[in-house]
Amino acid sequence: MYVVILAGGSGTRFWPLSRTKTPKQLMSVFGGRSMLQRTVERVLPLAPERIMVVTNSLQAEETARQLADLGSFPVDVIEEPVGRNTAPAIALAAALIASRDPGATMLVLPADHYIRNEEEFCRVAAAACQAAESGALVTLGIEPTRPETGYGYIEADTAASGTGAYPVRRFVEKPDAARALEFLAAGNFYWNSGMFIWRVDAIRGELSRQMPELSAAIDTLQLGAGWDSASLRPQVERIYPGITGESIDYGVMERANNVLVIPASFGWSDVGSWSALPEVIESDSDGNVAIAARGLISLGSSGSLVYGNNKMAALVGVKDLIVVDTPDAILVCRQDRAQDVKKVVEELQRNGLTDYL
Amino acid sequence: MYVVILAGGSGTRFWPLSRTKTPKQLMSVFGGRSMLQRTVERVLPLAPERIMVVTNSLQAEETARQLADLGSFPVDVIEEPVGRNTAPAIALAAALIASRDPGATMLVLPADHYIRNEEEFCRVAAAACQAAESGALVTLGIEPTRPETGYGYIEADTAASGTGAYPVRRFVEKPDAARALEFLAAGNFYWNSGMFIWRVDAIRGELSRQMPELSAAIDTLQLGAGWDSASLRPQVERIYPGITGESIDYGVMERANNVLVIPASFGWSDVGSWSALPEVIESDSDGNVAIAARGLISLGSSGSLVYGNNKMAALVGVKDLIVVDTPDAILVCRQDRAQDVKKVVEELQRNGLTDYL
Repeated sequence: MYVVILAGGSGTRFWPLSRTKTPKQLMSVFGGRSMLQRTVERVLPLAPERIMVVTNSLQAEETARQLADLGSFPVDVIEEPVGRNTAPAIALAAALIASRDPGATMLVLPADHYIRNEEEFCRVAAAACQAAESGALVTLGIEPTRPETGYGYIEADTAASGTGAYPVRRFVEKPDAARALEFLAAGNFYWNSGMFIWRVDAIRGELSRQMPELSAAIDTLQLGAGWDSASLRPQVERIYPGITGESIDYGVMERANNVLVIPASFGWSDVGSWSALPEVIESDSDGNVAIAARGLISLGSSGSLVYGNNKMAALVGVKDLIVVDTPDAILVCRQDRAQDVKKVVEELQRNGLTDYL
Repeated sequence: MYVVILAGGSGTRFWPLSRTKTPKQLMSVFGGRSMLQRTVERVLPLAPERIMVVTNSLQAEETARQLADLGSFPVDVIEEPVGRNTAPAIALAAALIASRDPGATMLVLPADHYIRNEEEFCRVAAAACQAAESGALVTLGIEPTRPETGYGYIEADTAASGTGAYPVRRFVEKPDAARALEFLAAGNFYWNSGMFIWRVDAIRGELSRQMPELSAAIDTLQLGAGWDSASLRPQVERIYPGITGESIDYGVMERANNVLVIPASFGWSDVGSWSALPEVIESDSDGNVAIAARGLISLGSSGSLVYGNNKMAALVGVKDLIVVDTPDAILVCRQDRAQDVKKVVEELQRNGLTDYL
């Protein structure tokens, strides 16, 4: 099994901690290891043949530094000169793996998700690997715990007999509240986690059927089994500007022939904004969470998250706030406005305040 | 005229910016000069014979550094080994001045007050100096602009004919809201600013009459006209521990014989807590104030104060907050809880977190 970690994101909703050069996946959002580092550590027990991290060239240096920091294991850092969403990154990774090992299975993981129960994750990933042996495209579907409107859903044909992997009826975009409630009640809808497992020949077959232009561009790469990332870079720089951005869900999964979903329940979150952190980090008795702080003194304060930049923090009489301190910027935001943090980034861009991006 | 600046305060309500070694008067609370420095600059146009800054030994070094930073002028820094409130500091200063110039007039100023109109301040101080020639104890009474319950009041006998200086009927402690309204309506009540002017022989006479123990202790000091602060220090250290702490208001003014008040209106605030700053610093159109910040991005936020520690600050969806960032601590506090910041300091003390005090 090869592991492909998609680490090219440029999430702005974690400003001021996330920056152009250190986006969400490279941030120490929980105070210790970055999300990328935690993603890598999570798959190491699966003893992958090789780990491939696909990132963009702006972040490649910091990505390599963080990987080296974890110790020694077989890893390639693949640089995209521009972001083109997930389908091109996956097509490139599949081609690179196929050039070394045409019969390999690849596990695709976003670099910036949270998983509480890592053992259960490994168990499910191993089961998915087995299910993928047949040539199916396997996706991990998270058992929903609430009528979430912020995730896409996967409808499974749970009537079909199976070994824990069910045929997928359809992928559903983010629903409104009423539909999310229906999905939760129905029992055969899962959150689309963006985690996939398949044989490289299977995904390459679907890519060439459904995304022939992308496949043709990837096929122009001169890849021997002995390719290395240095010689690869100019070739990738040549083809990427001409590639159309597309997600693997929309480009391949929604119309693929043989798609299975494996229900998973290991405490997952895509940690889409600061307000997602209290879901995944234990709070104190007042519902406050302090990360990277020397301490938190709370007087009549509750439901608040402080990212403390190694400082002593004090809250007096406040409720449901997000407070983030970094060496050059500070954010105070109401929990239910966490999505608007990206508007702060837009405002900085508009004003040419690039130092803070 | 000699100017005595009382700079021994240890205000905890401006934590985390105010610390044991840099209390409110030494803080750069407006982003530039400290309040002590602004107080000194304010009196320089009065061309005082000498400026005397009374502080405590913990803060003496930083006090001297800040004074040197302002340039060259005649100044003495007097160190108190322990704080004993205002009466002992004033008695000591009066004795020191008298040893050099027995007929001198002294202007007493707190180091940590804000005054908007500095020219008007100088005009009033000069008038007060004249009024003090007669031997009266003159106090500056601020014309109230609102029914403030946080200040003491001075009732004047405005029926008495006078040259802008009225006899004082009585000093009144901080009133409740109803009485504060009455005082405002009456028109002859003024805020007690803690600013005084008198001849040194006049105040020394009242001190020896009303506070004989304090006067006797001060009289044991060996002061020639050529005393200097180095030779003074061991003597002060000898007498201070035995001196009882008392305010000049309670110890002398309330029962003194010949007290005048000069009404003053120069945009004064004692800046008693973070929530006082928006009164004295102009806010933007959303009612936000940013101090020491590289910029402030406000999305749907209002009525908030940010002390930015030289950073970019962003507020999203918040209202009436105080946000203070310093190199090792951060505070977020609701405006109407600003008085409770001192409880944070108490909590730090209780937990032995002396690094943050």
